[in-house]
Amino acid sequence: MKEVRVGICGLGTVGGGTYNVLTRNAEMIAGRAGCPIRISRIASRRRRDDLDLGQIPFSTDVFDVVNDADVDIVVELIGGYDVARELVLAAIKNGKHVVTANKALIAVHGNEIFEAAAERGVIVAFEAGVAGGIPVIKAIREGMSANRIDWIAGIINGTGNYILTEMRAGREFGEVLKEAQALGYAEADPTFDVEGIDAAHKLTILASTGFGVPLQFERAYTEGISEITPYDIAHAELLGYRIKHLGIARRRESGIELRVHPTLVPQSHLIAQVDGVLNAVLVDGDAVGQTMYYGPGAGDEATASAVIADIVDVARTVAHESLQRVPYLGFEPSSLDNLEVLPMEDVQSAYYLRIEALDRPGVLAKIASVMSEHGINIESIMQKESELEDGRIPVIILTHTVQERQINRAIEDLEALAEIEDKVVRIRAENFN
Amino acid sequence: MKEVRVGICGLGTVGGGTYNVLTRNAEMIAGRAGCPIRISRIASRRRRDDLDLGQIPFSTDVFDVVNDADVDIVVELIGGYDVARELVLAAIKNGKHVVTANKALIAVHGNEIFEAAAERGVIVAFEAGVAGGIPVIKAIREGMSANRIDWIAGIINGTGNYILTEMRAGREFGEVLKEAQALGYAEADPTFDVEGIDAAHKLTILASTGFGVPLQFERAYTEGISEITPYDIAHAELLGYRIKHLGIARRRESGIELRVHPTLVPQSHLIAQVDGVLNAVLVDGDAVGQTMYYGPGAGDEATASAVIADIVDVARTVAHESLQRVPYLGFEPSSLDNLEVLPMEDVQSAYYLRIEALDRPGVLAKIASVMSEHGINIESIMQKESELEDGRIPVIILTHTVQERQINRAIEDLEALAEIEDKVVRIRAENFN
Repeated sequence: MKEVRVGICGLGTVGGGTYNVLTRNAEMIAGRAGCPIRISRIASRRRRDDLDLGQIPFSTDVFDVVNDADVDIVVELIGGYDVARELVLAAIKNGKHVVTANKALIAVHGNEIFEAAAERGVIVAFEAGVAGGIPVIKAIREGMSANRIDWIAGIINGTGNYILTEMRAGREFGEVLKEAQALGYAEADPTFDVEGIDAAHKLTILASTGFGVPLQFERAYTEGISEITPYDIAHAELLGYRIKHLGIARRRESGIELRVHPTLVPQSHLIAQVDGVLNAVLVDGDAVGQTMYYGPGAGDEATASAVIADIVDVARTVAHESLQRVPYLGFEPSSLDNLEVLPMEDVQSAYYLRIEALDRPGVLAKIASVMSEHGINIESIMQKESELEDGRIPVIILTHTVQERQINRAIEDLEALAEIEDKVVRIRAENFN
Repeated sequence: MKEVRVGICGLGTVGGGTYNVLTRNAEMIAGRAGCPIRISRIASRRRRDDLDLGQIPFSTDVFDVVNDADVDIVVELIGGYDVARELVLAAIKNGKHVVTANKALIAVHGNEIFEAAAERGVIVAFEAGVAGGIPVIKAIREGMSANRIDWIAGIINGTGNYILTEMRAGREFGEVLKEAQALGYAEADPTFDVEGIDAAHKLTILASTGFGVPLQFERAYTEGISEITPYDIAHAELLGYRIKHLGIARRRESGIELRVHPTLVPQSHLIAQVDGVLNAVLVDGDAVGQTMYYGPGAGDEATASAVIADIVDVARTVAHESLQRVPYLGFEPSSLDNLEVLPMEDVQSAYYLRIEALDRPGVLAKIASVMSEHGINIESIMQKESELEDGRIPVIILTHTVQERQINRAIEDLEALAEIEDKVVRIRAENFN
C-alpha cells in the first residue's frame, strides 16, 4: 500500500487545524483513504510555537514545498491572490495535485488554474473554499449529478449572518459589528465579509459547479448589509419574513443570475432558522427538489475537515493510480455551458420597499398607481401610523416577482412624487417555491 | 470516450423515476460523467404503459439483466431480501457493478455482498437506500473522512415524521395514519414505517459508514410511534421540546449505540423544524462539529437522483479504468473496527417520564426519592392540575443523561408505589450538545 505525501503551505488558522486533525486522526484517515497520509513538508512565514512539528522538514519559503520531490499533494493555505496563484501554478507544473481553501483564488483565477491542471493531469480540489466544513461542493458535483440544478441560495458568510442574527434584538449594525470584531468573528477591515465580496467568491464557485459554466466572479453583483436597519428587520418580521444575507445563483434560459444581497426569506423556511455564524446552502434540482446542507462555515478544524476530505479524495484516486475522476467543476470542460451572468436589471425577484411619504390625502393611491403603471403586483402593503415627528408615514410594500428593471423604474417614479422626499428603501425577497 | 451501459431491474416508483431522469437529463449527465450513460436493458415483472421504452430490450425476468454482456452496471430496484440478494450476488459474480436503492438488502446482507464484491473487484453503491435524494452516504464516507464521527441522528422515515407533524395539532395517531394511507404516504401495512424497522435499516447503514464497523442490523433497537399521544406531544412542547422519531447511532468506547425510537429534541434545534415527509440527518464529527443534510427522503425522482448519482460515480471510475475508489463502508475492510452494538440497557440518554399518580400528600416526595436513589438527576419537573376524573395527577419529569438501565429500575420502583397504578410513560430525549 502506497503512502501519500502532503506538503502544507501556510500554518495559520486552517493550516494549524489541518496539521492537528491529520495528526490526531491519522490511523482512522488511513483506514478511509486506503493508504497512510504523511505530512512530508511544511512551509510558513512563521513557525508556530504551539505546534510540535516533530521531524517534519520546515521552511519559510512556500515554494520549497512545490519543488520538493517528496510531496504528492500541495495544500495551499496561504490565502490571497497573487502569490497563491503563482504557487498553485508552479505546483501543477511540477505534477503535484493541489488542495486549496482559497475561495478568492478559485473564483478569480480558477479557469486558468483548471486549464493548466487538466493539461498536466493533476487534481485541484477546493471543498474548503465554500462553506467551510460543509461538503457542499461534493454534494453538488457528485451527489446532485443527475439533476439540472435550477438555483442555489446560501448563507455563506458567517460574519454577516452573526450580525443580522444579533440585529433581530433591535441592535444597530455598527454596534454589533464592533462586538463581532471583539469576538474575532469579524476582521479589523470587515469589507470582504459585510459587503458580500467573500460570499460572492463562494457563490461564483457554487454556480459554476451547479450549472456547469466557467467562473465569472467579475460579473457577480454584491450588496452588503451595512445599510440594513433594525427597523426594516422588525417590519420584515411583521410580514412573516426574516432578512438574511444570501448568495443567490439561478439558471435562466438567457443566462445566470449571480448576486449577493440582503434578502427577505419566509420565517417558515428552514434557512430562516440558520442563525449566528453558521452556514447553510439550499440547492434545488429538477429531480430531487430542494436539499439543504448546514454546518460551520469557518473555524480551524471545521475548515480542516474539508481540506482533509479533499486530501483523502486525492489519495483514494492516487493510491489506485487512476486519473482525475470528478471534473474540476463537476462537468467535463468540453461540456461546460456558455451561459453568461445576467446584468442585475435582468434579475427576477420579489421586493420589500419602504417608502417614507408625507401624510397627505391620496398619497397611497399615487403609490399604488406607480406600481401598477410598471406592471408590478403587490403581495402585501402595510401603512403604519406615523412614528416620525414631521408627520411622514412609512408605507411598506411586498411585491410579487418582477424584473429588477421594473422596480428600478418604479422607484425612480416614486422618488419623483412630491410626497416622497427620501430615498425608497429596497430589499429583495425570495419565497423559494 | 467509452459509454457506460446500465441495466435496470424493477420498473416501480424508483425504477420509473430513474428511467425518466436518465432520459430527460441524458446530455447533462454525460457532461458530468465524462461519457454517455445508456440504458441497455430493462427487466420488470410488468411493462409500464406510461413509459415509452423505445428500442431498449425488455424482459420480465430480472436475471436477464445480470446475464446480459451489454450491461456494465446492474441497477437493483426490485426491493425485498431474497431475490434481490440472489440477483445482486449473481451480478457481482458476472463482474457487473451494482447500484441499489434497497436499504433492507444492504442492512441485512451487506457484509456478505461487500465481501463478494471486493473479491470480484466491482463497486456496490447504495446512496439511494438512505434518506432518498439526500447525498448523506457520500457526505459521511467522503465529505467527513477527516473526522472521528461521534454520533449520527436522523429523521429517516418520512411517513413517521408526517404523522408526528400532524399530531402536533392535537390529532390522534390512528386518525393521522389513516389519512397518510389515503394520501399514499403510508403503506396498507404500515409496520415497517411506524415501528421503526425501515429507519433501523437506514440507521444501520449510516452507523457502519460513519464508525467503520460491520453492518449489525440484527442488534438494532426499534421502538415505534404508535403509542405516542397528542397529550405527551403537547407536554413535551411545554417543556421546550418536540417529539421526533429519530434513528440515533453513537460511538462509545465499549461499543455502538444503535436505536430508533421517539425522541424529545429541543425546539430550538434545526432538526426540530424538519416537518412533514422530509428527512434530515445530523452528523457530528470531532473536527467539523455538527452538520445537517436535509431534503426529500422518498419519491420517484428524488430517489432516482441518488440512484443516478451512484451510476455517475461508477461511470466516472469505470470510464477512467480505475478500481473501486471509495471503500463500500468508507473504510478499507482491513480497517473496520470490531465494536459491537451495545445492549439497550447500556445506552445513555435523557428521559421524559409521565407518571399518573394518585393525588395524596407526599407523593411528589416519594417520586423524587425514587429518582434520587437510582442516581438520576432531574432537569425539570412539572406537576399538572388534575384533568382526570378520578383525581390522579400527571407528573412530568425530564431527566439529565443517565444509563437506560438506571431508568428501567427507577420505573420499576415507581410502578411499585401504592400511589402509581398505571404504567409510567417513558420517551427518550436528546439535547445534541
